[in-house]
Amino acid sequence: MAITSFQPPRRVLMGPGPSDIYPQVLQALSRPTIGHLDPLFITMMDELKALLQYAFQTQNPFTIAVSAPGSAGMEACFVNLVEPGDKVVVCRNGVFGQRMVENVERCGGVAVTVDNTWGEPVSPELLEQTLNQHSDAKIVAFVHAETSTGALSDAKTLAEIARRFDCLTIVDAVTSLGGVPLLVDEWQLDAVYSGSQKCLSCVPGLAPLTFSAKALEKIASRQHKVQSWFLDQSLVLGYWNGGAKRSYHHTAPVNSLYALHEALLLLQQEGLEHAWQRHQEMHQELKAGLMELGIEFVVDEAYRLPQLNAVYIPQGVDDAAVRQTLLERYNLEIGAGLGDLAGKAWRIGLMGYGARAENVALCVKALAQTLR
Amino acid sequence: MAITSFQPPRRVLMGPGPSDIYPQVLQALSRPTIGHLDPLFITMMDELKALLQYAFQTQNPFTIAVSAPGSAGMEACFVNLVEPGDKVVVCRNGVFGQRMVENVERCGGVAVTVDNTWGEPVSPELLEQTLNQHSDAKIVAFVHAETSTGALSDAKTLAEIARRFDCLTIVDAVTSLGGVPLLVDEWQLDAVYSGSQKCLSCVPGLAPLTFSAKALEKIASRQHKVQSWFLDQSLVLGYWNGGAKRSYHHTAPVNSLYALHEALLLLQQEGLEHAWQRHQEMHQELKAGLMELGIEFVVDEAYRLPQLNAVYIPQGVDDAAVRQTLLERYNLEIGAGLGDLAGKAWRIGLMGYGARAENVALCVKALAQTLR
Repeated sequence: MAITSFQPPRRVLMGPGPSDIYPQVLQALSRPTIGHLDPLFITMMDELKALLQYAFQTQNPFTIAVSAPGSAGMEACFVNLVEPGDKVVVCRNGVFGQRMVENVERCGGVAVTVDNTWGEPVSPELLEQTLNQHSDAKIVAFVHAETSTGALSDAKTLAEIARRFDCLTIVDAVTSLGGVPLLVDEWQLDAVYSGSQKCLSCVPGLAPLTFSAKALEKIASRQHKVQSWFLDQSLVLGYWNGGAKRSYHHTAPVNSLYALHEALLLLQQEGLEHAWQRHQEMHQELKAGLMELGIEFVVDEAYRLPQLNAVYIPQGVDDAAVRQTLLERYNLEIGAGLGDLAGKAWRIGLMGYGARAENVALCVKALAQTLR
Repeated sequence: MAITSFQPPRRVLMGPGPSDIYPQVLQALSRPTIGHLDPLFITMMDELKALLQYAFQTQNPFTIAVSAPGSAGMEACFVNLVEPGDKVVVCRNGVFGQRMVENVERCGGVAVTVDNTWGEPVSPELLEQTLNQHSDAKIVAFVHAETSTGALSDAKTLAEIARRFDCLTIVDAVTSLGGVPLLVDEWQLDAVYSGSQKCLSCVPGLAPLTFSAKALEKIASRQHKVQSWFLDQSLVLGYWNGGAKRSYHHTAPVNSLYALHEALLLLQQEGLEHAWQRHQEMHQELKAGLMELGIEFVVDEAYRLPQLNAVYIPQGVDDAAVRQTLLERYNLEIGAGLGDLAGKAWRIGLMGYGARAENVALCVKALAQTLR
């Protein structure tokens, strides 16, 4: 059968990402492509850096978007900061902590894990105990907002503990950026990466990234070359921070960067505090609706992410059949469980542009009708 | 000053890439985002694979697009195929051969170079001599179409020699795919990567990639884990080739993949042979125009790429000033020289949708007026 142009339906995206995209972002995405060394593009990238600094609440000069998805943002942190033999304490309370362990080991580092129950935040006490036992650790890595469970960890406290033990921090902010407070400078986080397709409501494929001065010092004093050429940030720096003398590293994903610029501009115009507040309000509205249906949350209210709602699938309900009906009858996507929660939970995202009353209303009503 | 939406001008892109994008591709890019595990998206990806197989002229089941630019496609080949200690013969006749050497070394491999003059193709005789001296080599790597010089190497012959010495081949087809004949199966190439932003006239950010059965065998028999988690193709395979049981690896760049699907569909509709012919015809037209201006080519006609025309900057002409005038007065981008050719040559691209009579006419006339 002949292949024709792909015409996707208009879905309401309430899974763990990609989230609903702002219409303005899709418009920006399709503007005319210009060269990645064009002076006008360089101006756009300088603006993009300023907008990323606002979103991250940082003054770090090294604040960029990696030209690849969030998992490459994660890898960019580990390959640049971990040298062979380095001991890295990884806090693990879901899928993405486990992925961090993989990253450490593939860099030739030694991973020591702080294991927490899925659905709970990382325990500061456990981290402290582990660091007491491993005083030679150089880095502490943790996930701020675990996308696989919907639990928020206390990044500020975890970073304080890490600093007391002279450790740099690598922080996964893929799902937190733009959805809950994330204060990179105030909390003194060292390497923080995110994804474009969560609370920024941009298309997937880019990973916002920021490095502190201490992180850059560690990179500058490396004994071994970074194992990845593509993700070697000392090379990338020559492009992002080169100004008019920008040197070619790789061809930037021009149109995707237009889209990220627009998404961050919308976030700036709304204001971070308003965005956090809106996510919280929509979460409360969703919670009220789900409670009426007798649906229970996986994560305790004290550390529950407003933007990623993991809920138990009611007893006797066919997981896949419900999600299929939501998708086919209502054009509504919610997420399946991942890892330990596969088949046991759904993940309902209220991210960025997706955190709107009409989405909550649709989700609650469509679930009610499907579960009936 | 307040940041506003970025409104790029409409440029005519005749540099080394990104090339002019098909209007239909920009339309496809901005279609509604759907989930990367949506059944409809999975159907789209299956079609995309078939279209990539056509473009590469291969039946390889492992034929995908890496979710990152061409340089990540290069790295995907090296990190998956090279193990620590492996000897790799790298043919070097421009910037991208040198990047291959970097890749080999960062994977812990031992690079042996076959050095050729910039602007000339890789010498089969030199490759054969080198392989005679290094009979323990496991891989031969070369660039099919050197974007930094505009020289085409004889991939078929180089691969034949490699096979005689029991070596796998890694082939850079970033600039060749869609512009000149590239017959992956007939020439028995093992790992071939490309970029979306050259002769496919898609937005930058994706790297088409295909592995032969022999390449997959080598990957399956690895003694060490692939050093990159993001680029570990045994993991990526679970997503691209998983069918309905597709497992999550990373969030696919959904909209960019729509765009690539559309670009490849346009290539299929035109037909590869017609596309190759069109590139050749436009090159002849450009050549005639440039010769009238007394502009000379860097590369001998016998192995000159039609889609990437490196020409010497005429004596006494201010390189940057000319390119600036072309950009500002005519909205026309041509490329600067790279590496050894920086300041000495321009690179005029006639790639994909950019290989049209109106582009050639504009380029010749604008250059004539600017150089006058």
